[in-house]
Amino acid sequence: MSSEIVIIPQGGVTSAGGFLAGAVRAGIREDVDKLDLGIVYSERPCAAAGLFTGSRVKAAPVLVCQKHLADGRAQAIVANSGCANACTGEEGLRQAYEMAELTASKLGVQPEDVVVASTGVIGNCMPMDRIRSAVGDIALSREGGDDLARAIMTTDTVPKQTAVRFDCQGRRYTLGGVAKGAGMIHPHLATMLCFLTTDAPVRQDFLDTALRRAVDTSFNMITVDGDISTNDMAVVLANGLAAGEPLDAEHPAAEPFCDALAQVCIDLAKAICRDAEGATKLIEVRVGGAASDADARRAARRVAGSLLVKTAVYGEDLNWGRILAALGGSGADVAEDKATLYLSDICLYRGGHPLDYDDRAARAALTGDEVELRLDLGLGDGAATAWGCDITEEYVRLNSAYTT
Amino acid sequence: MSSEIVIIPQGGVTSAGGFLAGAVRAGIREDVDKLDLGIVYSERPCAAAGLFTGSRVKAAPVLVCQKHLADGRAQAIVANSGCANACTGEEGLRQAYEMAELTASKLGVQPEDVVVASTGVIGNCMPMDRIRSAVGDIALSREGGDDLARAIMTTDTVPKQTAVRFDCQGRRYTLGGVAKGAGMIHPHLATMLCFLTTDAPVRQDFLDTALRRAVDTSFNMITVDGDISTNDMAVVLANGLAAGEPLDAEHPAAEPFCDALAQVCIDLAKAICRDAEGATKLIEVRVGGAASDADARRAARRVAGSLLVKTAVYGEDLNWGRILAALGGSGADVAEDKATLYLSDICLYRGGHPLDYDDRAARAALTGDEVELRLDLGLGDGAATAWGCDITEEYVRLNSAYTT
Repeated sequence: MSSEIVIIPQGGVTSAGGFLAGAVRAGIREDVDKLDLGIVYSERPCAAAGLFTGSRVKAAPVLVCQKHLADGRAQAIVANSGCANACTGEEGLRQAYEMAELTASKLGVQPEDVVVASTGVIGNCMPMDRIRSAVGDIALSREGGDDLARAIMTTDTVPKQTAVRFDCQGRRYTLGGVAKGAGMIHPHLATMLCFLTTDAPVRQDFLDTALRRAVDTSFNMITVDGDISTNDMAVVLANGLAAGEPLDAEHPAAEPFCDALAQVCIDLAKAICRDAEGATKLIEVRVGGAASDADARRAARRVAGSLLVKTAVYGEDLNWGRILAALGGSGADVAEDKATLYLSDICLYRGGHPLDYDDRAARAALTGDEVELRLDLGLGDGAATAWGCDITEEYVRLNSAYTT
Repeated sequence: MSSEIVIIPQGGVTSAGGFLAGAVRAGIREDVDKLDLGIVYSERPCAAAGLFTGSRVKAAPVLVCQKHLADGRAQAIVANSGCANACTGEEGLRQAYEMAELTASKLGVQPEDVVVASTGVIGNCMPMDRIRSAVGDIALSREGGDDLARAIMTTDTVPKQTAVRFDCQGRRYTLGGVAKGAGMIHPHLATMLCFLTTDAPVRQDFLDTALRRAVDTSFNMITVDGDISTNDMAVVLANGLAAGEPLDAEHPAAEPFCDALAQVCIDLAKAICRDAEGATKLIEVRVGGAASDADARRAARRVAGSLLVKTAVYGEDLNWGRILAALGGSGADVAEDKATLYLSDICLYRGGHPLDYDDRAARAALTGDEVELRLDLGLGDGAATAWGCDITEEYVRLNSAYTT
């Protein structure tokens, strides 16, 4: 079970066997001197699955990925920052296909086995000249994960990688991942990109299920500003290098695999919240006792997403009425006289009544860089956890004060 | 039709015949020296209708109002700022009933004919001693609307009143209203209160329909921070002083009455957005060509509510990709290649492609205190307009930097 899942220190997208990565500075944005184009490559073809933005306005690379992953196979990911290639019409679509072709011919794989991901400014086409000359310069290695992680950063301040391993029936499986956060480049767009890799052999339909489950408890439970991106994606590649029987729902490693994948995703999701633009605190909202899991998810996400809760947490002031107000507006079933609210272990509200609590202890629970809110709705067994972050003047400044 | 609707200069909640108002400083919050308790009174019993917060966590006064308005009749409204009387359990409920009783005995009406409204801090009970001694001091007059408007203000910076009149078949009908905005007191809660008055005789069921229709195109189409309050309410009183046949759907004045009520509500709703905490600009989002009106409403509200659109407008920077991203995430049907986006009259995007536009003209359209965005989805006849405001460092400061 999850107790057997071991975090790999400094682990990342190349921790699982057979995965290489690398990145270069292609100059996609001339004004920023940073890595901006990278590749993740598996030495063997992979079972692959992807989940994409729910937006009706999907970026060109998202459309290309959906097509390329339709057969459940992939072998490489090419990703850039500095340009989202969204709202760019036919031209943008041609460019996304060309990025796959350039990568495929460099690596000697099929273009259909290349996943394309972009993040950055919406409404600009890709500077394809620079991409064409830069793809060839990308050197791939087992140590290239950090470069790749930096290449997909926009206003992220730290690269985000993690990896775990677990043993099952004498076999060791490794899972790693890299993500970029809900920062906005120069600043235009919140884009979440996540690439997951594993050496486990996994049947594609089970990989799909495992990814969906992991994303549901991680990336689908974080909120920075409530804006759905045109470019969001989470993609997992499983190359089978760990050997053995392919994992499916009946396999003894199925459950720890799902748990491990969820843990990688949750680690990356929390890292995204911690590093959100201008944020100073991670907010964890744990809801229990809901009428259903769906209700718990609604409630947790709404509280974590409430601007008023975010500003209160930023101010380190215990404005708990805002938490109940957000709960009330979440769409979840709520009976005021059955709800209980905790800040860390301090009970603030129970059975329809505000409680007397130790002001100093409550204040102390707000001063750290993680704030935990727990709600027991007292109605059933539904449970869920969501993560958010505080909102600061810096967020507003970053997203308003710049000149095109 | 609506062309006959005339705005009454300096009009307000007492513009219609037979309505009086007044307010006092009860000292509900000791630390703020302002009017905080007021009454609107009709010399005659009124047909009445109300719409209340959709939150599952409803303040005590909301519960009392729903009960008191169940018979479709009312004659007075008592309202306070400084305390929301929300999340206060049985005690809060008793207090809200007592506020109705105190007001009723002062005015010589039935407690069941008194509407109770509160706004302010959640989780505190009412200082009933102060209320008891202050209710008697409220002097009611035709000129008291402004005092009442000020008494319900929290962090609003201006009182919000408006009134219109129209003539139909030789009879003059007047409609007025007062509202308080989506500011947050000291700062705890966004609460919208709106009291509407008319001298038109109106059948209660038609009054209900007219209010629902008016609120749907006004208060339900504004968004400041996406948080639903525990105390929101819009109440209309119709005392019939204008005489004549009671209005119903068949009455010749039915249509202008609905239009006039909607106009009063829209004026107040826009005033709330303009005066939202920290806001510097009103944002109007007009969506046409949607697959349905419901889709148009979704799209308009989402764009007006997007934090990224709000910060872009604040920065006066034309970050139009954010508008399309918000549209894509709205849940409305969108075909990228059929959508058109305008800033005032400047077309920015059409048929799946960014357009070249005059940078200077676009910038000029962003520098005023009203910004107009228009989206034509090119899919059908659905249309809707929503209003929002920009978000500023001041919003964050007001909502975080204070000490309980």
